[in-house]
Amino acid sequence: MNLKDFKKEIDPLINEFIQNKIDGIPDDKNLAFLKDYFEYLKIFLRDGKRIRPYMAFLTYQAFEGKNSKDIIKLLVFIEIFHTFCLVHDDIIDNSTKRHGIDTLHEKIGKTNSNKLGIPHAILIGDYLFAWSWEIIINSSLNPTLSKDLMKLFSEMIEEVFLGQEIDVQITGEKIVADRLIEKKTLYKTAGYSFVKPMLIGALLSGRLDKKTVKFCNDLGNALGVAFQVRDDLLDITSSFEGNKTTLSDVTNHQHTIFTNYVLKNGTSEQKELLRRYFGKEIHVRSVNKIRKLFYDSGAVNYGEKIIADNIDKANKLIGTQDLRKYKKDFYTLTMLISSRNS
Amino acid sequence: MNLKDFKKEIDPLINEFIQNKIDGIPDDKNLAFLKDYFEYLKIFLRDGKRIRPYMAFLTYQAFEGKNSKDIIKLLVFIEIFHTFCLVHDDIIDNSTKRHGIDTLHEKIGKTNSNKLGIPHAILIGDYLFAWSWEIIINSSLNPTLSKDLMKLFSEMIEEVFLGQEIDVQITGEKIVADRLIEKKTLYKTAGYSFVKPMLIGALLSGRLDKKTVKFCNDLGNALGVAFQVRDDLLDITSSFEGNKTTLSDVTNHQHTIFTNYVLKNGTSEQKELLRRYFGKEIHVRSVNKIRKLFYDSGAVNYGEKIIADNIDKANKLIGTQDLRKYKKDFYTLTMLISSRNS
Repeated sequence: MNLKDFKKEIDPLINEFIQNKIDGIPDDKNLAFLKDYFEYLKIFLRDGKRIRPYMAFLTYQAFEGKNSKDIIKLLVFIEIFHTFCLVHDDIIDNSTKRHGIDTLHEKIGKTNSNKLGIPHAILIGDYLFAWSWEIIINSSLNPTLSKDLMKLFSEMIEEVFLGQEIDVQITGEKIVADRLIEKKTLYKTAGYSFVKPMLIGALLSGRLDKKTVKFCNDLGNALGVAFQVRDDLLDITSSFEGNKTTLSDVTNHQHTIFTNYVLKNGTSEQKELLRRYFGKEIHVRSVNKIRKLFYDSGAVNYGEKIIADNIDKANKLIGTQDLRKYKKDFYTLTMLISSRNS
Repeated sequence: MNLKDFKKEIDPLINEFIQNKIDGIPDDKNLAFLKDYFEYLKIFLRDGKRIRPYMAFLTYQAFEGKNSKDIIKLLVFIEIFHTFCLVHDDIIDNSTKRHGIDTLHEKIGKTNSNKLGIPHAILIGDYLFAWSWEIIINSSLNPTLSKDLMKLFSEMIEEVFLGQEIDVQITGEKIVADRLIEKKTLYKTAGYSFVKPMLIGALLSGRLDKKTVKFCNDLGNALGVAFQVRDDLLDITSSFEGNKTTLSDVTNHQHTIFTNYVLKNGTSEQKELLRRYFGKEIHVRSVNKIRKLFYDSGAVNYGEKIIADNIDKANKLIGTQDLRKYKKDFYTLTMLISSRNS
């Protein structure tokens, strides 16, 4: 099953889960506001790629997991957890838009009262986090497997939080070590979005042995690095069209391998130019000048090479692992990651 | 064991838990900031009453739970969860002080950068929430009991969040129904701080039958209402000395049974006076005037009667239930709740 078809399978289950939560709110006109907020979650969740539950599912199938239907229902927990991360992340980053629509706190602030946007969104994030646990607890997994899954989930959480902490902290700093950006990528993207979901799939299939763990780690890290660098590169190269913003990392003072490359290897004019705009709103007439900077300094080439190397590594790992008839889905995925433009 | 002695038992375990988390942060000077924040959690946690884990423990003992030592270690999860609630609550309420010391976001804002106080505190709240689950998962409970405990925990969480949502929402409203304040008290205080902890104790002791559930519900609700009304009353009557603030509910536009009593049953002058100050900073020279308002309108008497009635009810419930030699500890607790002055 490819990512697109998987989305078609899991999306109604996600919707159903949220709907049950809406129906579970005590019937009281004074709680109608909460129903509205939960309703908005459905819209907020709509455009996600589902890459994390998909990684788990693909791994589950490749390792001979037999109960695909129940597993997709269970994997809703990963997407609900991810939504919790996004909701709190948007508050932390002060973002007003995501996928082209209002972030949760922005939406609540607009419809209710400006002052209540962040308070309610913090709480709804907390709800989502609680629900992700609840889905595991209420699943039909036997108690021992359920406990093992929660242990793995717990590790995944600690990893993504640590990545988040580094992220928040370095945003305030002028210059950071390459190593720290690398760590952030490993925790926040590779570990959280690829390695851990794959390990979850392997655990659920009953095949979490040493060799499998190594495969999940190696492939997940290669895919994760390629994914993150592509993401950062898209922020530089994509135009204003569609839902993507341009140069938001520069505006938000987000250190990426690209900003670091310029600050370390650029000419003094290039360094100076980036420093002038780093952390500031960028006027549309300056966009091309800054974009050019990343090309001229060699940063874009450098990033493209990292992506290509990691995709290459991923394809080799896929080539040598027994993944049954699902091998083609893994290859489709690496192609998607290497060439995606949104 | 009384509450004070219980605090002596559980506090070193709480400290040890946080210390392990500090020790678990990867050794990297770039992550030193996180160690500092976790260190502050120890101080932030120091002055809590431990009433919630105590309710669970007392119930566990009364119902012949045999493994007191392991259980106290497990019950750390309730206090860690509670700390998560406080950290996010303080952000939501914009509070700068708790128990007379800086709230977490205030502290981080002061030592790091003002802009980063709330982002980091949101994340550390999330960490605490994750840890509360982790403690259960890593406990020595058998997987089935562990799952049942998590189901109960899950219900407790949904209840306190619903209470929180009502709380946040009604703060923005001019006048609210008595019923809504009652609901908030039942969810946020009675359910969360008394009933659910007692049910957790009963579950862990192996005695969660119909009769026990009824006892936990009845006693927990009576204690919870008495506790909340006493808390709201203390906010009116206590002086500036010590760690308590005065009239913070009036300043923060928090509806309580006392504000509602005045707004419904006061003379038109009394209503007018409260409305003038509701939601505003109160100058020290106006404090006595507003305090007097609550006495003169009959609100204080009304509240005192609710406390007395509920304490009376609680004592009767304790009197008729077999609680073995722990009956005296329950009586000590009701006395503490009825007469506490901080």
